[in-house]
Amino acid sequence: MTMAGALLTPFMANAAKAEYKWKMVTTWPKNFPGLGTGANELAKLINDMSDGRIEVKVYGAKELVGALEVFDAVSRGTAELGHSAAYYWKGKVPAGQFFTSVPFGLTAQEMNGWIFTGGGLELWHEVYEPFGIVPMPGGNTGVQMGGWFNKRIDSLADVKGLKMRIPGLGGEVLKRAGGTPVLLPGSEIFPALQSGTIDATEWVGPYNDLAFGLNKAAKYYYYPGWHEPGSSMEILINKKALEGLPENLQSIVLNATKIANADMLADFTTRNHAALGQLMSKGDIELLPFPKDVLAELKVLSEQVVEEEAQKDEMSKKVYASYKAYRDQVIKWHDISEKAYLNARSPE
Amino acid sequence: MTMAGALLTPFMANAAKAEYKWKMVTTWPKNFPGLGTGANELAKLINDMSDGRIEVKVYGAKELVGALEVFDAVSRGTAELGHSAAYYWKGKVPAGQFFTSVPFGLTAQEMNGWIFTGGGLELWHEVYEPFGIVPMPGGNTGVQMGGWFNKRIDSLADVKGLKMRIPGLGGEVLKRAGGTPVLLPGSEIFPALQSGTIDATEWVGPYNDLAFGLNKAAKYYYYPGWHEPGSSMEILINKKALEGLPENLQSIVLNATKIANADMLADFTTRNHAALGQLMSKGDIELLPFPKDVLAELKVLSEQVVEEEAQKDEMSKKVYASYKAYRDQVIKWHDISEKAYLNARSPE
Repeated sequence: MTMAGALLTPFMANAAKAEYKWKMVTTWPKNFPGLGTGANELAKLINDMSDGRIEVKVYGAKELVGALEVFDAVSRGTAELGHSAAYYWKGKVPAGQFFTSVPFGLTAQEMNGWIFTGGGLELWHEVYEPFGIVPMPGGNTGVQMGGWFNKRIDSLADVKGLKMRIPGLGGEVLKRAGGTPVLLPGSEIFPALQSGTIDATEWVGPYNDLAFGLNKAAKYYYYPGWHEPGSSMEILINKKALEGLPENLQSIVLNATKIANADMLADFTTRNHAALGQLMSKGDIELLPFPKDVLAELKVLSEQVVEEEAQKDEMSKKVYASYKAYRDQVIKWHDISEKAYLNARSPE
Repeated sequence: MTMAGALLTPFMANAAKAEYKWKMVTTWPKNFPGLGTGANELAKLINDMSDGRIEVKVYGAKELVGALEVFDAVSRGTAELGHSAAYYWKGKVPAGQFFTSVPFGLTAQEMNGWIFTGGGLELWHEVYEPFGIVPMPGGNTGVQMGGWFNKRIDSLADVKGLKMRIPGLGGEVLKRAGGTPVLLPGSEIFPALQSGTIDATEWVGPYNDLAFGLNKAAKYYYYPGWHEPGSSMEILINKKALEGLPENLQSIVLNATKIANADMLADFTTRNHAALGQLMSKGDIELLPFPKDVLAELKVLSEQVVEEEAQKDEMSKKVYASYKAYRDQVIKWHDISEKAYLNARSPE
């Protein structure tokens, strides 16, 4: 058989190279740490495992389409692949936001549990079906940071009137607490915070926050990121393009997304802890926990906001019912496993 | 190109099918929940992504070689693949045990961080190099349970004289606390506990513990599993066999292990929480946390035992230095992210 294989090689090498030339559009600047590099990794995986039969070219935001046009571009087939996050399409597909992150919701490990073995992925496919898109999770940041503030948050009253860059469901919760959520793309956060256009911002975690130099624009660095406890990125695949592939290449594309998904979390876990050390060594910032009663009040508001949001359409209702059932169960288990262990390892 | 592809297909289909017939030996009974099914998934992934060019046949424990002969079988090439856990080869490769689990060490998310992006995998490859084996992580259980006891553990004194089934470094810690660690394969645990041959046992978590019916042999179910906070399984690949593959098939085999690794954790996360509900509904058991001072004392003993173990040979010293440096850093980050978040979500 090896002989046959060897004989075939020269012919196959020519015939098989780049049978499929695919484009991947992304919401991130090209090579953006963690997110853009995750998209690059996905392209390389597909290329390597397919022996070059599929060649994927990655486009940063605005290179082919705008950062927030990824969904439409993949839906209409301008690009076969996209790398983004589902909550960006909230206006068009409200049910999608539950596949990114929910305040006081699932952690990264729990998201993967729900999506891959708890019925989440089937629902996500159903949500995107009308758009001709097959979605897959495309990486996770882990628990994010609570954000950068220019004043201390000692009680929920300190949030009143606060202009804070915080997107999605977290922003809705801030609004309910009396604050003003502001939407800004990543690149505009630093100047807005430095000039006082906003009073506070969340972004991701030490790794990405340090890259933007947010420590130079605010003093108080709060934790934990109650509003994004494990944000899942998404990979969008044009359904027709996927189905046009031979079966084993379909398997390679779908499985490559699972590797990219797992690898991003490992990457963030390592880089965030290294960056935290660098941030703290700069001296000028104060690392502070949100007070317990502030977190308790935010949790109550979050439940209200998320429940209301979930009632807005039938698909959101269906997705959230699955998400919530999983969350309520997994919390019982992780309270006595992950949480109990982390507390035993670092007792207060 | 599609034409060329279509024309090639009939010829390739015959020529390419099962160019490589591989065997996978495992430490688990065939189809064993979580672990054996994880091995099956790996075989299927390799088969699907390679379009059948590699065909992997999975052998349960004792079908081809004994449960604890997996390492030797892959080393000498009797099987191209193995699915097991590195701490089983402690006698032969002491440094390997740090790639499974360490008392009060890394969680699943942190293990993946250390192994894939923190230098762990390179060291693991170095450790197995003399044996002609390429190791990859092959799944993770997440934080395990502390175990089943027939009496309450109110202080560390209650551990004195206790005969408990607990392998590896955890067993050494129990010994230091005055207990008697007993080694038993999974299948012998239930009868030993029921007959009183042992007073206590740890196994994995609700999913696997329920499958063995351990709830029928002991009343007190303790948490958390301080001794195995995120046990990583391992996939062993015969180095020569791997290097004998064309590059893209090498990529497929190595990347398939990463999918199997991530999927097992998702599987355990979902199945453990479902099984916990079932266990608790049976009524007869008491779910109890180890007292805080018992955990604090076990932590001190664990540090001593692990440090001593790590000094026994040069390679262990080198591996543990890397592990410990990663752990000390990641704890600082996860204390303010994962841990702080889990405490905010479920305040005491």
